Order: sequence, then C-alpha cells, then structure tokens
Amino acid sequence: MKNMKSEAIFNLRVYYEDTDAGGVVYHANYLHFMERARTELFFTQHLKDYEKCLFIVNQVELDFIRPARLYDQLEVVTKIVELRGATILFEQIVRSALDRNLLFCQGLVRVVNVNANLKPTRLPKSLIEKLSC
Amino acid sequence: MKNMKSEAIFNLRVYYEDTDAGGVVYHANYLHFMERARTELFFTQHLKDYEKCLFIVNQVELDFIRPARLYDQLEVVTKIVELRGATILFEQIVRSALDRNLLFCQGLVRVVNVNANLKPTRLPKSLIEKLSC
Amino acid sequence: MKNMKSEAIFNLRVYYEDTDAGGVVYHANYLHFMERARTELFFTQHLKDYEKCLFIVNQVELDFIRPARLYDQLEVVTKIVELRGATILFEQIVRSALDRNLLFCQGLVRVVNVNANLKPTRLPKSLIEKLSC
Amino acid sequence: MKNMKSEAIFNLRVYYEDTDAGGVVYHANYLHFMERARTELFFTQHLKDYEKCLFIVNQVELDFIRPARLYDQLEVVTKIVELRGATILFEQIVRSALDRNLLFCQGLVRVVNVNANLKPTRLPKSLIEKLSC
Repeated sequence: MKNMKSEAIFNLRVYYEDTDAGGVVYHANYLHFMERARTELFFTQHLKDYEKCLFIVNQVELDFIRPARLYDQLEVVTKIVELRGATILFEQIVRSALDRNLLFCQGLVRVVNVNANLKPTRLPKSLIEKLSC
Repeated sequence: MKNMKSEAIFNLRVYYEDTDAGGVVYHANYLHFMERARTELFFTQHLKDYEKCLFIVNQVELDFIRPARLYDQLEVVTKIVELRGATILFEQIVRSALDRNLLFCQGLVRVVNVNANLKPTRLPKSLIEKLSC
Repeated sequence: MKNMKSEAIFNLRVYYEDTDAGGVVYHANYLHFMERARTELFFTQHLKDYEKCLFIVNQVELDFIRPARLYDQLEVVTKIVELRGATILFEQIVRSALDRNLLFCQGLVRVVNVNANLKPTRLPKSLIEKLSC
Repeated sequence: MKNMKSEAIFNLRVYYEDTDAGGVVYHANYLHFMERARTELFFTQHLKDYEKCLFIVNQVELDFIRPARLYDQLEVVTKIVELRGATILFEQIVRSALDRNLLFCQGLVRVVNVNANLKPTRLPKSLIEKLSC
C-alpha cells in the first residue's frame, strides 16, 4: 500500500427523492451520495482507467450521526485509505457544505474490481499509480 | 386488438423507502408499485414467455389523486387495455387495500417489447394468446 | 395566465443508482431528475417564496424517447407553461448535455401548492409575479 | 439484555427498480429489503407499540457476499441480538428463498428509538417484553 492523494469533495443538495416520512434523508441514500462522490473522484482524475473497470461494493460500515434534511447543502469528502490487489477502501464523510463541523454520516466503503463474470481482478497498474503519490 | 382477461391485483405495504419528507409516498414511487404489479401479472400467468422478452416503458400518464402514507396497505389493480405489435398498454390503479373506493393514483403505462439492441420487436404470439381471451 | 420566463437548464450525470438491469436509466428516475430541475429553478430565482410553499405533483405525462445510460451527461430543460390558481404546469425535457438534439425523455408535470392539510391553496402573488414576465 | 425470540423471515422478489446497470441488485437496496423485513417483524408481533415509536437507523455494517439478480426470490432473515435502553441491534441475512445456503448480503443494523425532536428515548417496556423471551 502506498500513500494516497488528498481528499476529494463532492457537493449536492438534498431533494424530496432523498428524504423519507421522518422528514430526514433516508438512511440508505447516504450510500447513493457516497457512490456519486466516488464516481466523480474517478472521473475527475482517471476517466479512461475507470471506465475499463467494473467495481462492486463488497463491504460498508456507516455511522449515522445526525439527520440531514430537505434542501440541505451537503458535501461528501472521499479519501482512499487502502489500495491493494483488487480492492479499494474509501473513507467517506457526509457533512454540511455550510458548516464543515456538522457531520451527518461517515463510513468505510470497500469496492472490488471485477471482470465480466464478477470475479475479483487485480486493479490496473495505471490506476494504482494515479491514485497513489 | 382482442378482449383481455380480467384484472390482476397486487398487494403491498408502504415502507419508509417509499415516502418523502412531505410524509407521503414520493410520486415517482407509484411507478415502482405499478411495475411490481405488471411483473407479478406476468409471473403468475406467463413466466416462460415473459423471461424471453425485454420490455421497456415508453409512455406513462399518471394522476395522483390523494397521497398514500407510511404503512398504508395498498393494492395495485392492473388491466391490459391494448395489445398490438410490439406494445402493451396497461391501465393501473393504486388504491387502499382496506377501502377500495380510496384511490391514490391511476394511470396508463405503455410498454414495448424490444430486442437486445433495444429495437421494438413484435410480441411473441404465445404471449398475445395467453393475455387475450 | 401570463407569459413565462425563458427556460432553465439543470445538469446531471447518470450514476449506478439511476440505472437498472436493462443497462439504462430506470424509467421512474426521470421523475427524480425533473424534480431536481424544478427545485433548482425555484432556488435560483425565488428561494423565499418557494420555501413557504408545499408543492405536490398531481399529474404527469411522460414520453421515453430513447434510453440514457450509465455516466451519460444529461441536462433537464424546464419551462413553466401555465400558472393558475394553485397549480403550475411544467414542460420538461431530458436531453444529452453533449448533443442537445438527443432527447431521452420529455413530459408535462403539474404541481399543486397545498397547505399543511394538503389542500390546494392559491400560489403566493409574489411567486406568480416572479415567475411571469 | 435478555434472550430474544427466534428469527423472522420476510420474502420478496427482485424487480427492475432494485437492480442497476451491473445487472445485479444495487448495493444500497439491500438496506431497503432489511428495513421492510424489520417493519414486518414489528407489524406481525407488536403493531401498537411499534406505531408509537419513531426509529432511526444509526449504524450499519454490511457484507455483500454475492450479487442477487433480477427476478430472484429472496428471503430476509431478521434476528434481534441486542435490546438495551433506546437501541435495538438486528442481525439480518439476505439469502435465496430457493436455496438457503446461497447468501447475498448479511449485516448488523442498529436502530434507535427517538422522540419527536429526534432525541434517543428509552424503548417502551411493553415492546421490550414482547421482543424478549
């Protein structure tokens, strides 16, 4: 494992589709926000390698700290904390875009690069190099 | 076009995932309910032909009559009103399972049978025969 | 009814959450895209009046013209075509952000301003004025 | 903490809405399936106490073991493994309804009973008693 580049930030607003009858963001939807952020991280930095890969999420651990609400402006902070073999481990935080001390959700998401038969497959070297520093 | 078999009914309960911060079912989710009902209609009656087909929705018209709420018990009534070439037109109603006069949503959904390249493709004869009477 | 201001454009990328096993955007999710676009239209132009209102969708008509795919860059064009009493009628088009002749979905969405009991309620005058020209 | 009643099983079929362009169930949707199962567990056993409570999910750990696919028939097995103060810890498994050795996803979900201000609030005694044995 090598040292990783610094964090990437992705911004979004909470819409009705993201909320539930509790008046807050539906818990599973933080996983949507996190995936959008991981995708944009790759698009920003590594488009060609990324599109050659098929990633599937194989483990998540999430803490829901306080509920976000309709129209809240959020940012998702994404850091790669491990990069090994076929897997990438991301640390992700969803916080207020207006007050960065206000955390809504944080967690670890492990994704695996797979081939067309969904079998784990070593990450392309070029991707590892671009993501390391 | 031929006469169609009588209506099929599909039951469901409203969960948090289906609702929004207005405290009611999120409007787009009625399309989820309707697709579950169409799928079960086919599974109940025509499994083998159905799995050979790839259907895509190509037109919807929906009226949202009153909002359904968390934990409501709903039923989706599905009727085939047209069956021609590559397309099937469904009339679907979402109502209370406890009071059938209580309508939440009703609409028309047109689906098209397509091939692997997503081009419209005539419905299998066997399917038309099973769905007609 | 008065003449309306010119169209607003909202941009988005298609993520996994938006797609289905057909490899394309799940049909109901175009309604999500359209709601995001309507919300941003209000936020851009009329924040204070908008947050006083509670809008519910009460009618939609959608044509799905061709399927959008994972990572497609889309734009939603939103035009207000009617503004009367408690209701606003929007015409919305989802097209490629890279080739504006490439239409994915278009439709009409009617929303109603309601009070806390979900009863239709006349639009605030200030909102009508800002949305007209 | 007391010993808990034996497991509850909830059945479902995978529809298009549940899948993504990878051809499999979208990872976040397992949380939907798990919530449906927890809800039905309460509805089956404890309706009145449950509706007095407002639960929010405050922690999840999920392992995605193999991907479920369109039309798969799944069952969610739900067990309460801890019941203390304001929180309930569930162990949940999503497996094939046709081959119970085929696991798709398993995890722990911690929910907290909250009051109208979303502050943690001790579980009603009656609920604890019904859920223990």
